[in-house]
Amino acid sequence: MIQSQDKPDRVLVRVSDLTVHKADEVVWVRARVHTSRAKGKQCFLVLRQQQFNVQALVAVGDHASKQMVKFAANINKESIVDVEGVVRKVNQKIGSCTQQDVELHVQKIYVISLAEPRLPLQLDDAVRPEVEGEEEGRATVNQDTRLDNRVIDLRTSTSQAVFRLQSGICHLFRETLINKGFVEIQTPKIISAASEGGANVFTVSYFKNNAYLAQSPQLYKQMCICADFEKVFCIGPVFRAEDSNTHRHLTEFVGLDIEMAFNYHYHEVVEEIADTLVQIFKGLQKRFQTEIQTVNKQFPCEPFKFLEPTLRLEYCEALAMLREAGIEMGDEEDLSTPNEKLLGRLVKEKYDTDFYILDKYPLAVRPFYTMPDPRNPKQSNSYDMFMRGEEILSGAQRIHDPQLLTERALHHGIDLEKIKAYIDSFRFGAPPHAGGGIGLERVTMLFLGLHNVRQTSMFPRDPKRLTP
Amino acid sequence: MIQSQDKPDRVLVRVSDLTVHKADEVVWVRARVHTSRAKGKQCFLVLRQQQFNVQALVAVGDHASKQMVKFAANINKESIVDVEGVVRKVNQKIGSCTQQDVELHVQKIYVISLAEPRLPLQLDDAVRPEVEGEEEGRATVNQDTRLDNRVIDLRTSTSQAVFRLQSGICHLFRETLINKGFVEIQTPKIISAASEGGANVFTVSYFKNNAYLAQSPQLYKQMCICADFEKVFCIGPVFRAEDSNTHRHLTEFVGLDIEMAFNYHYHEVVEEIADTLVQIFKGLQKRFQTEIQTVNKQFPCEPFKFLEPTLRLEYCEALAMLREAGIEMGDEEDLSTPNEKLLGRLVKEKYDTDFYILDKYPLAVRPFYTMPDPRNPKQSNSYDMFMRGEEILSGAQRIHDPQLLTERALHHGIDLEKIKAYIDSFRFGAPPHAGGGIGLERVTMLFLGLHNVRQTSMFPRDPKRLTP
Repeated sequence: MIQSQDKPDRVLVRVSDLTVHKADEVVWVRARVHTSRAKGKQCFLVLRQQQFNVQALVAVGDHASKQMVKFAANINKESIVDVEGVVRKVNQKIGSCTQQDVELHVQKIYVISLAEPRLPLQLDDAVRPEVEGEEEGRATVNQDTRLDNRVIDLRTSTSQAVFRLQSGICHLFRETLINKGFVEIQTPKIISAASEGGANVFTVSYFKNNAYLAQSPQLYKQMCICADFEKVFCIGPVFRAEDSNTHRHLTEFVGLDIEMAFNYHYHEVVEEIADTLVQIFKGLQKRFQTEIQTVNKQFPCEPFKFLEPTLRLEYCEALAMLREAGIEMGDEEDLSTPNEKLLGRLVKEKYDTDFYILDKYPLAVRPFYTMPDPRNPKQSNSYDMFMRGEEILSGAQRIHDPQLLTERALHHGIDLEKIKAYIDSFRFGAPPHAGGGIGLERVTMLFLGLHNVRQTSMFPRDPKRLTP
Repeated sequence: MIQSQDKPDRVLVRVSDLTVHKADEVVWVRARVHTSRAKGKQCFLVLRQQQFNVQALVAVGDHASKQMVKFAANINKESIVDVEGVVRKVNQKIGSCTQQDVELHVQKIYVISLAEPRLPLQLDDAVRPEVEGEEEGRATVNQDTRLDNRVIDLRTSTSQAVFRLQSGICHLFRETLINKGFVEIQTPKIISAASEGGANVFTVSYFKNNAYLAQSPQLYKQMCICADFEKVFCIGPVFRAEDSNTHRHLTEFVGLDIEMAFNYHYHEVVEEIADTLVQIFKGLQKRFQTEIQTVNKQFPCEPFKFLEPTLRLEYCEALAMLREAGIEMGDEEDLSTPNEKLLGRLVKEKYDTDFYILDKYPLAVRPFYTMPDPRNPKQSNSYDMFMRGEEILSGAQRIHDPQLLTERALHHGIDLEKIKAYIDSFRFGAPPHAGGGIGLERVTMLFLGLHNVRQTSMFPRDPKRLTP
């Protein structure tokens, strides 16, 4: 066991660096035993390091005894080993490894951390495309087994790629916004009063009282706007006590939130948000092409398409498209999930984009703090954004006038006492502002064309799952 | 009220851009009325935009009537106004404004958002250095008044600077780690079992069961290491149900967390973490000099000093220094807060640094998962880092062997059933690893030489405060 006894000079070479440029060099490598196969006086190992792997050969001869071959053949899969070996060019490409032109001729092998003999799932099964598994009668791994054994499932090339890309989404989001002059803020998650009337909120025991988990950072973002930060963003957990067991709902997810003061029109904000998403899409396609292709191997999918500038449709236009496709919907009716999906297909056909903005929602289907449209009292200055026909952002111009906010709250039957602090935030001069919240897991899922947010949440939380 | 009626072409000029280069130009500005003072047929306004302000003059004449002067004089402080005016060079510098060489001769003025007439606190009082306030018998604002009216308190130049710098700390932390090849992860905050025995943990009602709020992301960071991500970081809320009412404890704070697999010695990790902090300090001193000076005006403080490479002392060395200074302490005794502070002063005197690492803590004072020192069973491979004599990071090599981890848990009297999932994470091959967690509010406070984490948390949470 490595307990930090020593600081040896030994250099460990990365598996990805094992190429013909290192031919005939003696190197040390630390990697996992992905597979091992004994064959007479030889043992072939595949050594894996993250998404890379190389073939290693232990053969009876000058450097290896019969015992050593036996020892190597018996190392449990997923154990971590330190191997000294000579890099040898091979005549025939090794198709099953990422390092196809070389193999490692092992001289020494030590087990650094031994895995238990029985793995709860096999990595090769976990990366097999479902269709292929079915056709060939071979095993795939179901979602609960994956999630129950997430430490192993996250080692697959697909999982490694998904979460590296997700890290990239956060990075691109912040990079873009900081370049646009936004300030990152940290908002509290434990709050004293359930916002928006108290539905779907988790209760926390807070010393001798009760408190709640924030369902969004919105109030705090808005307070920062009233405090003159002008353009703010935050990334953090969002909690929803909804008993929804769908492919796109989690009880805890990561919100990428934006709020921004504007001069004259909330479209100034809509354009900034849409451009931020476009910069994310472009950055992903530029910097994470390997990861996208890795995920596509297991989950084939069309490349994500978007327009510049982003397509913006008004709600009434969308209604017309749906009605033309035979859907019956009232003017002030919200979109159902199947209708959202259908609309996504219609928009894709007509405009060839997987990303668009739906603007001017009916006032009746939006929260009380949504600014009504000045020209049409049944509409509102609010919008959703969609990727592949699923909502990834909901936003609006917020009412910044305490008088109108009070009226709208009363209209919605909300207890004014419970939102007093919220309304009071606007009493000392508030700039017009708008914003929105993006779901990180949904963006990751839909960009990659995956089918469940549990694939894009490392440790998902839903009504039935709280572990690991 | 701006309800997004129109999209006018009018360009709004930033207050910070009002310089002699714009002399004699007609401009539109949106800003807050910081002060107004009527004087016969004239009214002098100070218009403020974030940390910048400019003098504006409304005078009876071609462009302004008597009524307009009166109107301007009566606008409540903190209201937001749109002003059209001519930029005029002044003969004598205006000492009370950031824009000292020009003033604005107002032609039109509109109120965009009216503030209520009585402000709960005055911004000028809120930025006054405490000593000056006392000496001159002038008002300062106490902490609870500030926090109760945070939307106004955050508008001061000091608050604007503190939280812009804090945004910078997060940005530099991530920028440095992404350059070092780290992956950002998102860890769940709602967990099924209270880690570390269940003390100081908040309970959440989770549908029909109970759940808990994570006291740190450590288990999840470690699971990511076991899942081959090798180097991970996360930024997120950390919850501690401690009834501590001190200057440096919050019940919810922001953790900057790092975890990293290493090859041979945990000092590889210690060096990466220390270098990350050094890059943050350097970045702040380079990019946020204006903010640092703004805060210093209200809270004077010596510049933050650090060495490269970072000073690393062993615990036994620190004990010797404290004993030499007359403190009586046992070899396996933890540092008290006053002794930490004293040690900070001794280290500053001897080494001239405000930042250092204290390594090799007694095993007895560290959590069960801390790796024992292989050479001295009473010591451990663990460390804290200090800024200006206060702890900002705690970390260690973690035990990655399930057998030893079980032994140590039993030794600490921990119920194995409760930490089964944790121990099981290491059963399928685990690389040696170490990490640590940094408190964002503490780093901000100590870098700026402030005296309370409530000054560096936008919306602080403690046993007595849950609002706003």
